[in-house]
Amino acid sequence: MSPEIRLKPIGLVRSPRKEAIDDRWGKIVSTIDIDPGQFTLESLAGLDAFSHIELIFHFHAVPDDKIEIGARHPRNRKDWPKVGIFAQRGKNRPNRLGLSVCNLLKVEGLTVTVEGLDAIDGTPVLDIKPYIKEFAPRGQVTQPDWPAELMAGYYSD
Amino acid sequence: MSPEIRLKPIGLVRSPRKEAIDDRWGKIVSTIDIDPGQFTLESLAGLDAFSHIELIFHFHAVPDDKIEIGARHPRNRKDWPKVGIFAQRGKNRPNRLGLSVCNLLKVEGLTVTVEGLDAIDGTPVLDIKPYIKEFAPRGQVTQPDWPAELMAGYYSD
Repeated sequence: MSPEIRLKPIGLVRSPRKEAIDDRWGKIVSTIDIDPGQFTLESLAGLDAFSHIELIFHFHAVPDDKIEIGARHPRNRKDWPKVGIFAQRGKNRPNRLGLSVCNLLKVEGLTVTVEGLDAIDGTPVLDIKPYIKEFAPRGQVTQPDWPAELMAGYYSD
Repeated sequence: MSPEIRLKPIGLVRSPRKEAIDDRWGKIVSTIDIDPGQFTLESLAGLDAFSHIELIFHFHAVPDDKIEIGARHPRNRKDWPKVGIFAQRGKNRPNRLGLSVCNLLKVEGLTVTVEGLDAIDGTPVLDIKPYIKEFAPRGQVTQPDWPAELMAGYYSD
């Protein structure tokens, strides 16, 4: 297996949410404060032409002893199947990587304002990518039943 | 800014593509060989119920001195606008994180077979997430003109 990979956060999330809560992320407005020690306005040039961005971030608040590698019922709902950590998107995962698409509201200096980002205040951001339609799934998307049930209140109010 | 983050690959890509080529990734069939030293069959339980997966990987072949932080014309096409590294998805980016959705063909033991993964042979994989429709962009997606032109031959034959 390849050696360890070292990453440096490109910025930090500032969010009204200080703790992980399961639901109602849709209307949360937060900012990504890009590190002025590493980046300039040029790094974000043209980003505001996109309606959505994808963020890769680090679930920094998850302690080592909470990381899961096996299978469990998502949200401990016994009526949903036991699925492996790579078949769900829970935060207690190897490498603690979070991935979300959110609505881009504004780019002002090195501050990127977004809506619907499901990351708590202080979350280190590892990458920002523009959401490009042509990178969406090719072909029909199918999935089991439990994710739609889990997501019912995730983004809605 | 927060301290350095250390990640350990969860597996490696095995692909017929040994070098980065811009286009025609759509029909490439590759595998992700999950590290048996870290994971078991349980880690992947239920993954095969999804038609698509999202992969976060490391553009390991990009050398330090190629990393960009400013703006440039994507693919050096002077007829497209100069955009910052966070307004494009090029591989020469801070933290070298790649992100792609691909079609899941098969899960067999610790080997995950996919179609349309734009990562070369030997790429370290950092996370696998199931593609869940409810995590797709909320609201209408808009983008400038250049990405559709750039993507014209990316997944097609």
